[in-house]
Amino acid sequence: MPTFSKNEVVIFEEESIALPAGYRAGGMHCGLKRKKLDLGYIVSDVPATVAGVYTTNIFQAAPLLVTQESIAKENMIQAILVNSGNANACTGEQGLIDAFEIQKEFANELGIKEHLVAVTSTGVIGELLPMDRLKAGIKQILHEEHEDEANFKQAILTTDTCIKQIAVQITIDGKIVSIGGAAKGSGMIHPNMATMLGFVTTDANIAHEDLLYALKEVTNQTFNMITVDGDTSTNDMVLLMANGIADNNQLTKEHPDWDLFMNGLKVVCESLAKKIAKDGEGATKLIEVQVGGAFSTNAARAVGKAIISSNLVKTAIYGTDPNWGRIVSAIGYSGVPIEPNTLKVSIGAFPVFENGLPCPIVEADVKKYLELETIKILVELNQGEYNATAWGCDLTYDYVKINASYRT
Amino acid sequence: MPTFSKNEVVIFEEESIALPAGYRAGGMHCGLKRKKLDLGYIVSDVPATVAGVYTTNIFQAAPLLVTQESIAKENMIQAILVNSGNANACTGEQGLIDAFEIQKEFANELGIKEHLVAVTSTGVIGELLPMDRLKAGIKQILHEEHEDEANFKQAILTTDTCIKQIAVQITIDGKIVSIGGAAKGSGMIHPNMATMLGFVTTDANIAHEDLLYALKEVTNQTFNMITVDGDTSTNDMVLLMANGIADNNQLTKEHPDWDLFMNGLKVVCESLAKKIAKDGEGATKLIEVQVGGAFSTNAARAVGKAIISSNLVKTAIYGTDPNWGRIVSAIGYSGVPIEPNTLKVSIGAFPVFENGLPCPIVEADVKKYLELETIKILVELNQGEYNATAWGCDLTYDYVKINASYRT
Repeated sequence: MPTFSKNEVVIFEEESIALPAGYRAGGMHCGLKRKKLDLGYIVSDVPATVAGVYTTNIFQAAPLLVTQESIAKENMIQAILVNSGNANACTGEQGLIDAFEIQKEFANELGIKEHLVAVTSTGVIGELLPMDRLKAGIKQILHEEHEDEANFKQAILTTDTCIKQIAVQITIDGKIVSIGGAAKGSGMIHPNMATMLGFVTTDANIAHEDLLYALKEVTNQTFNMITVDGDTSTNDMVLLMANGIADNNQLTKEHPDWDLFMNGLKVVCESLAKKIAKDGEGATKLIEVQVGGAFSTNAARAVGKAIISSNLVKTAIYGTDPNWGRIVSAIGYSGVPIEPNTLKVSIGAFPVFENGLPCPIVEADVKKYLELETIKILVELNQGEYNATAWGCDLTYDYVKINASYRT
Repeated sequence: MPTFSKNEVVIFEEESIALPAGYRAGGMHCGLKRKKLDLGYIVSDVPATVAGVYTTNIFQAAPLLVTQESIAKENMIQAILVNSGNANACTGEQGLIDAFEIQKEFANELGIKEHLVAVTSTGVIGELLPMDRLKAGIKQILHEEHEDEANFKQAILTTDTCIKQIAVQITIDGKIVSIGGAAKGSGMIHPNMATMLGFVTTDANIAHEDLLYALKEVTNQTFNMITVDGDTSTNDMVLLMANGIADNNQLTKEHPDWDLFMNGLKVVCESLAKKIAKDGEGATKLIEVQVGGAFSTNAARAVGKAIISSNLVKTAIYGTDPNWGRIVSAIGYSGVPIEPNTLKVSIGAFPVFENGLPCPIVEADVKKYLELETIKILVELNQGEYNATAWGCDLTYDYVKINASYRT
């Protein structure tokens, strides 16, 4: 472990949910997918305070209903079970029965109360879970050979091309507090969390209401500011567990290190969100839109989301075309009252629109910038003091290819 | 001319804006595009009452500002001048000066007042109009060799692969009244009219306020219910001219044939809207979503637009994949409070979701249906008596190809 100074957030790019004290994780293949790992778990040594945020889609999948109902009992969980390959969504009464049964089976294996197990699913919509395979998997998954954080991160993936992980450490009350995260998500990603699962663990000591406040705040700035294709799925959720093993004085908004904790949590969630955006189906580039000078945070977010959601902007960036007109047009239909003459738009370091007019650009220079893997679009509205950042990806042939054939 | 009975709307698929009495149209190549026609006009023998609807994008292009200001003077125009190849958008003060100058030049050629000329542009954003070429074109365009409705329909196109036209005739007060339409639009098409130009002419006698009411009503049911890519452009407008030459008693909402006129206008606008959706950039199919049983018209429209705007639904249909889960998911995030258990969804004649559960389908049958050129998705909400129809197209490799390189 490196030493570090107060107020510092130390980042561990290769660590994840098992870095915080008292957590273990694992994964295996139980037969929902053809070959790849498809069942994973996170377990805390002791019950952990939990906060969750869930999809706004009206058709919430069965596991979301079961998990929310269970969490409502004590605001505590001790374990999370995830399967990929089948979303258990649009599966009616039987889907609910199945989700409850999985929860019970895994609780029995762990010897804990049922409502301390959160269940989550991702994959194809509208097919019942193959319960025999799942139950057989649950009986084996706690065996030592499956215990490996790396297995968990694999088991949660669907069309993802890579795992998404990060961890940080901060010092609170002289104790090292760790926060670790793993996520999946590639298509059906849109502000308000679409086919996206996020799992964040921490050993911090923090009460439920403050944990929930922190998660909601940070989610609005991170997971809710990414889009791949504008579709919001039935299964999204982010769960944040805090088991208190770091033994700091309980964190509240009044604690002197509250901001440091929020900052650490934001680093984790922003990193996961950007990794999801960058791994958007078929994507070749991460696009980051920074909006400043808005008259409200919501206005800044609306402008950022309009740009990052525009198929025309996304295809132009794929084609390394410095087509600023599409960016300006997206700002114009964002619903935010803009003053064209005070607007300034830059692509990377190149101003492209200012004082109501295009700026002279050397097209080849901007084109060269657009060949990079991370593209920044900067928007200054000059209307106020609020800002927001949104992330997305380019729209490519491969997006069409993946989604014209993959059955979600 | 065929004879027809009262209340009948007779459709002329091969006619357009010059069918109504007293209109002529033409087009030519003036040099905005490399080879194709790029300048067109419609002229009425006498000043015509006019109604217009315009883009909601804040960055309205210069010609829209000029046209709206001119129409506001008398609610009459006698001529429309259209150029393609350059949108005269995001061009600041000079763009406005140029638009006014074009208006003046064409008015001089016609010998009419400037404000009786509407000007419209479509094409690349952010470049000044090449005024020399445009002015040279305006001096020649009224020459006999350019007068041809077919030239007009060509001159307004950008990435369109075909012209869009239709005309109808109805009988009002024993007089034959004709309504003709031509439109362009292919990309940047979204509810609320994106890079879409629509021109509708009629020889009906109708007052301005009723004409505007009729156009707004019909636009909300037709042009505002199509989407290609969710982007709303800076230049959209639909202009409806009525020169009164048919000599019917002035149409008002109290006229016994008001509904017949509305019906005729709707047939024209719906046909043009569907042709635009079908010619969406890279599209291979027209998708029609019919939503019934909503508790309000707005709710029905929101559900229809959510489905038709979903990249995931659009790619699935391109891939002839009966992926009803994506349709249900889009309904779920439409913002309309849906009752999952009363929802019914069909793809063509095949029910796919009912009573909160997937319906058993023979996948090969639905797949075969999805190979057709027009795909219907039927949604019954069973919550009320309102309905709406939305149109769009599939999302294909060619959409990406066109937009990764074409500079709009």
